[in-house]
Amino acid sequence: MQLVEKKDGFEIWQGNRILLVHSPKNPCFYVGRGEETVEMYRGNFQMEDYLTEKIPLREAVKEETAQPGVCRYRFQDRLLVEIAVCGDTATLHISGQADAGNRLWIRINGEKEEAVYGCGEQMSYFNLRGRHFPLWSSEPGVGRDKSTYMTWRCDVENKSGGDYFNTNYPQPTYVSSRRYFLHADTTVYADFDFRHEAYHELSFWGIPGQIRIQEADDFLSLMEKVTAYFGRQPRLPEWIYRGAILGLQGGTKRVFDLVEQSLEKGIPVAGIWCQDWEGKRETSFGKRLQWEWRWDEKWYPGLPEKIAEYEKKGIRFLGYINPYLVKDTPLYREGKENGYFAVDGRGGDYLVDFGEFDCGVVDFTNPDAYEWFKGMIKKNLIDFGLSGWMADFGEYLPTDVSLFNGESAMVEHNHWPVLWAKCNYEALEETGKLSELVYFMRAGGTGSQRYCPLLWAGDQCVDFSIHDGLASVICAALSAAVMGNGLHHSDIGGYTSLYENVRTKEVFLRWAEMAAFTPVMRTHEGNRPDTNFQYYDDEDTMREFARLTRIHVALTPYLKDLVEENAVRGIPVQRPLFFHYENDPQTYQIQTEYLLGEDLLVAPVYLSGKDEWEAYLPEDAWVHLWSGREYRKGKIKVAAKMGEIPVFYRKASRYRTLFENIAGR
Amino acid sequence: MQLVEKKDGFEIWQGNRILLVHSPKNPCFYVGRGEETVEMYRGNFQMEDYLTEKIPLREAVKEETAQPGVCRYRFQDRLLVEIAVCGDTATLHISGQADAGNRLWIRINGEKEEAVYGCGEQMSYFNLRGRHFPLWSSEPGVGRDKSTYMTWRCDVENKSGGDYFNTNYPQPTYVSSRRYFLHADTTVYADFDFRHEAYHELSFWGIPGQIRIQEADDFLSLMEKVTAYFGRQPRLPEWIYRGAILGLQGGTKRVFDLVEQSLEKGIPVAGIWCQDWEGKRETSFGKRLQWEWRWDEKWYPGLPEKIAEYEKKGIRFLGYINPYLVKDTPLYREGKENGYFAVDGRGGDYLVDFGEFDCGVVDFTNPDAYEWFKGMIKKNLIDFGLSGWMADFGEYLPTDVSLFNGESAMVEHNHWPVLWAKCNYEALEETGKLSELVYFMRAGGTGSQRYCPLLWAGDQCVDFSIHDGLASVICAALSAAVMGNGLHHSDIGGYTSLYENVRTKEVFLRWAEMAAFTPVMRTHEGNRPDTNFQYYDDEDTMREFARLTRIHVALTPYLKDLVEENAVRGIPVQRPLFFHYENDPQTYQIQTEYLLGEDLLVAPVYLSGKDEWEAYLPEDAWVHLWSGREYRKGKIKVAAKMGEIPVFYRKASRYRTLFENIAGR
Repeated sequence: MQLVEKKDGFEIWQGNRILLVHSPKNPCFYVGRGEETVEMYRGNFQMEDYLTEKIPLREAVKEETAQPGVCRYRFQDRLLVEIAVCGDTATLHISGQADAGNRLWIRINGEKEEAVYGCGEQMSYFNLRGRHFPLWSSEPGVGRDKSTYMTWRCDVENKSGGDYFNTNYPQPTYVSSRRYFLHADTTVYADFDFRHEAYHELSFWGIPGQIRIQEADDFLSLMEKVTAYFGRQPRLPEWIYRGAILGLQGGTKRVFDLVEQSLEKGIPVAGIWCQDWEGKRETSFGKRLQWEWRWDEKWYPGLPEKIAEYEKKGIRFLGYINPYLVKDTPLYREGKENGYFAVDGRGGDYLVDFGEFDCGVVDFTNPDAYEWFKGMIKKNLIDFGLSGWMADFGEYLPTDVSLFNGESAMVEHNHWPVLWAKCNYEALEETGKLSELVYFMRAGGTGSQRYCPLLWAGDQCVDFSIHDGLASVICAALSAAVMGNGLHHSDIGGYTSLYENVRTKEVFLRWAEMAAFTPVMRTHEGNRPDTNFQYYDDEDTMREFARLTRIHVALTPYLKDLVEENAVRGIPVQRPLFFHYENDPQTYQIQTEYLLGEDLLVAPVYLSGKDEWEAYLPEDAWVHLWSGREYRKGKIKVAAKMGEIPVFYRKASRYRTLFENIAGR
Repeated sequence: MQLVEKKDGFEIWQGNRILLVHSPKNPCFYVGRGEETVEMYRGNFQMEDYLTEKIPLREAVKEETAQPGVCRYRFQDRLLVEIAVCGDTATLHISGQADAGNRLWIRINGEKEEAVYGCGEQMSYFNLRGRHFPLWSSEPGVGRDKSTYMTWRCDVENKSGGDYFNTNYPQPTYVSSRRYFLHADTTVYADFDFRHEAYHELSFWGIPGQIRIQEADDFLSLMEKVTAYFGRQPRLPEWIYRGAILGLQGGTKRVFDLVEQSLEKGIPVAGIWCQDWEGKRETSFGKRLQWEWRWDEKWYPGLPEKIAEYEKKGIRFLGYINPYLVKDTPLYREGKENGYFAVDGRGGDYLVDFGEFDCGVVDFTNPDAYEWFKGMIKKNLIDFGLSGWMADFGEYLPTDVSLFNGESAMVEHNHWPVLWAKCNYEALEETGKLSELVYFMRAGGTGSQRYCPLLWAGDQCVDFSIHDGLASVICAALSAAVMGNGLHHSDIGGYTSLYENVRTKEVFLRWAEMAAFTPVMRTHEGNRPDTNFQYYDDEDTMREFARLTRIHVALTPYLKDLVEENAVRGIPVQRPLFFHYENDPQTYQIQTEYLLGEDLLVAPVYLSGKDEWEAYLPEDAWVHLWSGREYRKGKIKVAAKMGEIPVFYRKASRYRTLFENIAGR
């Protein structure tokens, strides 16, 4: 990249293509003032900005600087920007001056055919072009589509319907089809607007310290650079490849009876994930958990012995935790006595409504609180014998709490999921368990790459809806991937069942066949286990789930290589097609297919009632996994009966024999 | 009012209260640039603005001017503002300079307790404080409440659900409880924002030529000034007081048979309003009309004779018209041959979809087209013998048409309803029929006061919903009133029936009892006559409707005096309570009661299943019309069985005997 100084401004070039321009006519910085309104209801946020000023900064005056290779520009009394362009990287250090205001806009040159991806884990749209994306960690929404009855009803009853941009994991970073990534070093509320043909407009409720733009020759190299910058996930523990992780609950007897039944049916079991190991509570939404993070001896009698017993059989036990503590429990009282919770503006208790129960928010900006909670994880979870857990939530930091570090909660809100991830990470690291234990999170932010070993896609509806069903998980995996989170999975069959919407056998099995072709298979009984289809509900499903899990296990050598590549180079396990077929323009628009590594193309059936499926294949020699039939580039149609998800392997793959064996051919 | 010049700015004072301030710290003008997106679907608009600049104009430089009493300020190269403050009036003439951009914001000082009203005919909120009001003529929406199933479904299926601010009749004018009105002389898209405690921010997609602010000592004087400026409505024709106007359709036989039945049941009939006099068409929405404006001889055989026959009995005949012509009819072809329709950007046909049929838009900016259409009204409607008509629509001018006068359709759109009103007005005026004929409109804008003799509230849902049912008509009447439109009425029982929502007998009767206490009673069979309750559906309703109409007729002496007052002084017939009780703060928040003249307070039952009702009475001696019981100030509860709408008269009224007789006491 290159910085070109002009008479009245400057330009940054990426090869022979312009990337950023400043001139009095086309300023790239705008500052202004806004007055925000933020309302939170159970993790659903309504953010509004009343804009009072938006000033284009037309005049840039160059100033001398002692640093070689750095150009410094002063934009009146508003901004000071130091630009360093070196090799593949441009960095813009931005300092707000006296009259900077509290809003900043930056325009990056766009191109007509350009596609952009990322902004964290996006569930609705992989290519972000044509839309804008508010970046604020929140509940992802139920339905996420204003045209559906589900979304409307959730909006009206609980403000929880969401929209296409809602995400647990936003990140002010995008990857361009021009083979660069741009990252804004800030955690303030941001909105990345890709609706304009000629430019991308990135806006911030504050002044980001730095904008980093880094290019590469191809997407794999770009991912190496992305993850070199943000960090890379560790390898998955060895035991995880042994089978599925069964999401079961309901006390010792029920859980282990179901495990035994599953084993009898031939389901390979890697782990038992027990979200109610710490007890449970009933709410109108469904079965919820007891938010006090210690073994519930009454609900799970004899659990330590069971954990030991099953570990000998090669089956691990996983639990659940989140960074809140329900009021009036012993742990809550301990935290409160020590002042470990975020407080209100006058130093009083601040309790957050999580849906019919209230909790204190552990103040991770207080080092003592952070260490206390980390210590609790070590003691109550790790020492107890858990091999992993869902590290849930992280998105609910209210914006009107007072924090120990004195920082505004508007700034810390998007930072919180990463602090929460880091707390878990360090608990593992400090106990030497990073390669043995695993936790999975839905919330995230800049740095999740380093601190979260496994994402899970959050709480999909138990259906085939485009914006909140099976299809949305593919988009989530791909957008997380380009952010550098190469390990992703989801609740098989989805989680949220509301009103008349319940999980069917078809939803479960289509989801399961997809999960077999992801790094991790894990079931979840959902928010209303009794009324939703479960894998153990009939013989036929047990058999089919066993078969799919065996396929997944059979993929182990291939998956391990991919996970290794992710750990070492930061190349994600699930990848967009254009990562390997960058000369094919059609691949840039695909968000319902993915490459599992370089050699498997997976085109999940994400609609109901299908027995054949249309897939797009980029130029290569592809072999349909189930029929062995060969295909080349183009839209093709294949049989797709239940259990035979459209999957194709590259004929030239060195894993060809493995794939052939999997198909039983 | 007074202009006070300051060192760096100026102030306008209303007595000892500040009204407008300009200083470098608190500028009152902001200019900027925006890029709008406008999408229309069947009269429902989606307006979006992408704001690229919003610049506070901090520096005002005073310039010399030859005009005495005028101060001229130059705001850089952006605005030139000439301020004249004289007596009760301040005017700001605004000229955009080279760098003005295409957006303007003006801040007017607000006060905490201040209430504001108007912005045209508003259906949801009378006091506009706390909300913003986009001002753009459109369909009013079905449901108008994003929390209702009706609105959601209409949005999803037809983009037609609307919101609280949708109106057929927007006007960039408000009346403040501080006893001034402010008017912006422009027809561009505007948004009046009353959400801020300290100021009202008025924004415009263009530079308004003038802002006028005029104060008065009391609200009645203020209304005189409002209507002195905008114009006043003529008196209603004499015949209208003789009874109800029956909305009937379906051909000669059906209509006149129903009239006869109505007369037999003792219903006083002033007119027959026949919307399908020109023929009809069936659509999925319901029965629609044949949009060619001439008598349909086949559908209405012998109509001229019938009109003459009934006129002798004192019963008038009214029809229907709107400013569009359906494609491929003789009148359409005539207009097309002469180039009388608005065209697309390349001069080609521009047809507007009105819901399963397409029409040409008569270009009223073309004097020949305007005269042609006016001549058609004279010939086909007036000469034919109609005594009035619904002059429907006017809100559908697309923003991408090319107009004869070369003006942007973005500017003419909000002007259109008034051009349409004027065309009707002149047809009456030029034929000497202003005192004998009447037309009623739902669309409006600045100038409707002069050119539209009677508003009707548009297409309410046939229900008790707050935002689109009976209650919304009261708000509509009051907000239209403060704009200077003192004659208002509505479709008894509402119009729009969709899905399972149909008009019940209760809705009809509650609406009818309210209509009896408005200037005009008129029924409408609605969009789906067959499935909705009609006044002629049962004996009981015929009898009750006859009784209510007789009450209405009995009010004639009082109503005529009010209509006279409206014509001469511009004091509206239906009035907000604070017009006469301005020292009572509670009256400023009331939008579900009104004063009919000074002496009747009407508190319509706008909810279902009530047999008593709570009303608020300001300080006075009030007599409950039906019981004769006396009340004074406060919240009171009265019996409110069907047919006995809560109405109170002032004990001191000179019409007391009239009111006593009406109640049959």
